[in-house]
Amino acid sequence: MSMQWKQARRAEKMNPSVIREILKVTDKPGIISFAGGLPSPQTFPIPEFAAACAKVLGEDGKAALQYAASEGFGPLREQVAASLPWKVDANQVLITTGSQQCLDLVAKILIDEGSRILVETPTYLGALQAFTPMEPEVVSVKSDDEGIDVADLKAKFSKDGKDARFLYVLPNFQNPTGRTMSEARRAALSAAAQEIGLPIIEDNPYGELWFDQPPPLPLTARNPDGCVYHGSFSKVLAPGLRLGFLVAPKALYPKLLQAKQAADLHTPSFNQRVASEVLQGDFLSRHVPMIRALYKSQRDAMLVALAREMPVTPGNPDKSVTWNSPDGGMFLWARLPADMSAVELLPKAVDKNVAFVPGSPFYADNADPRTLRLSFVTASVAQINIGIKALADTIKEAMVKEA
Amino acid sequence: MSMQWKQARRAEKMNPSVIREILKVTDKPGIISFAGGLPSPQTFPIPEFAAACAKVLGEDGKAALQYAASEGFGPLREQVAASLPWKVDANQVLITTGSQQCLDLVAKILIDEGSRILVETPTYLGALQAFTPMEPEVVSVKSDDEGIDVADLKAKFSKDGKDARFLYVLPNFQNPTGRTMSEARRAALSAAAQEIGLPIIEDNPYGELWFDQPPPLPLTARNPDGCVYHGSFSKVLAPGLRLGFLVAPKALYPKLLQAKQAADLHTPSFNQRVASEVLQGDFLSRHVPMIRALYKSQRDAMLVALAREMPVTPGNPDKSVTWNSPDGGMFLWARLPADMSAVELLPKAVDKNVAFVPGSPFYADNADPRTLRLSFVTASVAQINIGIKALADTIKEAMVKEA
Repeated sequence: MSMQWKQARRAEKMNPSVIREILKVTDKPGIISFAGGLPSPQTFPIPEFAAACAKVLGEDGKAALQYAASEGFGPLREQVAASLPWKVDANQVLITTGSQQCLDLVAKILIDEGSRILVETPTYLGALQAFTPMEPEVVSVKSDDEGIDVADLKAKFSKDGKDARFLYVLPNFQNPTGRTMSEARRAALSAAAQEIGLPIIEDNPYGELWFDQPPPLPLTARNPDGCVYHGSFSKVLAPGLRLGFLVAPKALYPKLLQAKQAADLHTPSFNQRVASEVLQGDFLSRHVPMIRALYKSQRDAMLVALAREMPVTPGNPDKSVTWNSPDGGMFLWARLPADMSAVELLPKAVDKNVAFVPGSPFYADNADPRTLRLSFVTASVAQINIGIKALADTIKEAMVKEA
Repeated sequence: MSMQWKQARRAEKMNPSVIREILKVTDKPGIISFAGGLPSPQTFPIPEFAAACAKVLGEDGKAALQYAASEGFGPLREQVAASLPWKVDANQVLITTGSQQCLDLVAKILIDEGSRILVETPTYLGALQAFTPMEPEVVSVKSDDEGIDVADLKAKFSKDGKDARFLYVLPNFQNPTGRTMSEARRAALSAAAQEIGLPIIEDNPYGELWFDQPPPLPLTARNPDGCVYHGSFSKVLAPGLRLGFLVAPKALYPKLLQAKQAADLHTPSFNQRVASEVLQGDFLSRHVPMIRALYKSQRDAMLVALAREMPVTPGNPDKSVTWNSPDGGMFLWARLPADMSAVELLPKAVDKNVAFVPGSPFYADNADPRTLRLSFVTASVAQINIGIKALADTIKEAMVKEA
């Protein structure tokens, strides 16, 4: 008989990445893409990596290529602990295969089928994809330019006697919106979470990429026992190594470690040693300011181009394109005039050789179809100018047809 | 209030790795360890890796350090497809973060809570750990020196109207037993699986490590649409890169790919390019024979030492230590005299500076407490001679006390 592969219920719930499908239509030679979340490759410290690979293989090749502890490479765990702005015991640090893996591990440990979990509006799509296989009920909490609406959080914490398992937040230069949670909002959120007993999963891949001043203290620093903190080397070194980490309270660490071991035994020991070597001598304190300056200049270029090109009717956001001005990170969030859909706009933009990501896939529920995400870090300033003009032209043509 | 971390039900089912706990007692300076499953580091091609790292970073650094496709690096997928002994479309190859990750992805896609899955007796512990979080009912199928008992497989395929989702098998130089499934057994198993419609997950990390002749054709080669095949570079190149792969039928590949993307976005692009570079020019055809010769000489040394040292009462396995003679791989399987327990023996052996892994954790049910696993690849021949004598002395002393 022909083979019947009966798939798990969760497999049916997993949908192809909408962004992945979207990016297929944007995969066209010569296109200017604001779509991907790719760090600028000119920031990758290639000579430092080459030197570190040679040193690690020359001095420690046998250990670097052997199986290793699931917790991660000791010196790298120490470096991570020392880099964080609160007192962290290196024993609470778990090195992961990119910070995406943190989401997978947390989902396995904290989500049962039907568990209530809370997310921002909108939220990081990769988190929704990592949580979905564990079959939670994902609930969006109202959010504004400063982050989570604390009153709505309290209202949505519990339903039918079922408390939320956790709140997932990305407070610094969020993906997709670029927004940052203010100090006042962090203080209120941290107090509310402790009051109602709501654990927080804090994701911070972009926190080092600030332009004028560092963001406020992480939520985890305010209540380490009530939070799991996720960090990444993808934006300060390079994503191709797949190195991230989490910091977990003692109550959770052993189970996260077991999940890590079952998932891939350990993160590549070679990569961990190479990164640890590159980080020696406070490398990031010299390297990251260069990334900040570059990304800030590109954000500025995009803001100038948007102001110059986009159709705006003062005082009437429904007849305007609107956008925010992120204080760091890689993304900017824009909104089309009323009755327009970013998903429908995309193929027309691609016809004019420019691409973006529609905002809808980033919403757990009640998506705003007018929203879109623009990355300002992958394209050059010259491309930003050409691309934003092409996008504005696309929008103007669509507005004429609508009218 | 103090933070209440409510964990998922699956977290409670996940137990600390028994082996991990066992290895803690064996972590003692100067101990001769037959416990770990560590490839001999003298087989790692360090100069080739160093040259490949320099070349990849020099010629392609920006791409090698950037985000990449979840499917894996195209040329490496082609190299994998070309290396397998049946016609494989590279589009059906998914590069994974070690072959351990294949188990995690398969578990997510194929196991619901309570799903019946079948395994060998005993089976690879890491597979049990990867399957457990998805909460299956794991059922052991009787197995002998040639592998799975096909009659018992048919008997256990279905219960209460619930068919098994899959059979997990490791046919070549199995971990933990070192045994290899014979050609006749493979033919019978493949026919039976197709007859009853039972999918097979075939794990083959050790297949290249044969001593005198290659093992019979994989089960997947006999029925590619009914099998997922897992392979690894850990034993032919080095484990510290965490590079594995799976080959899946078209019916399953898209869901496995989505699970991969959610798990860690992609396997490190740098590592994939470095491995692909090392593999150029048919490197493995020169490199692997050296590993085979080394491991064969170490197996031979262990067999000689066992025959010389171990207490044996001819014709009476209950008053003897017995062991097998694997045709390849890294492990040998031994059994203590009646009424002895390998778990209880271990601390006594550690007192004599020798370590092994008790067999019990490798059984999904009805463990045989007399069994133990001996790795012959990590210790040198001189250490094997000393260690096997120390182990034999430990057993003889325990036998005297028993008597």
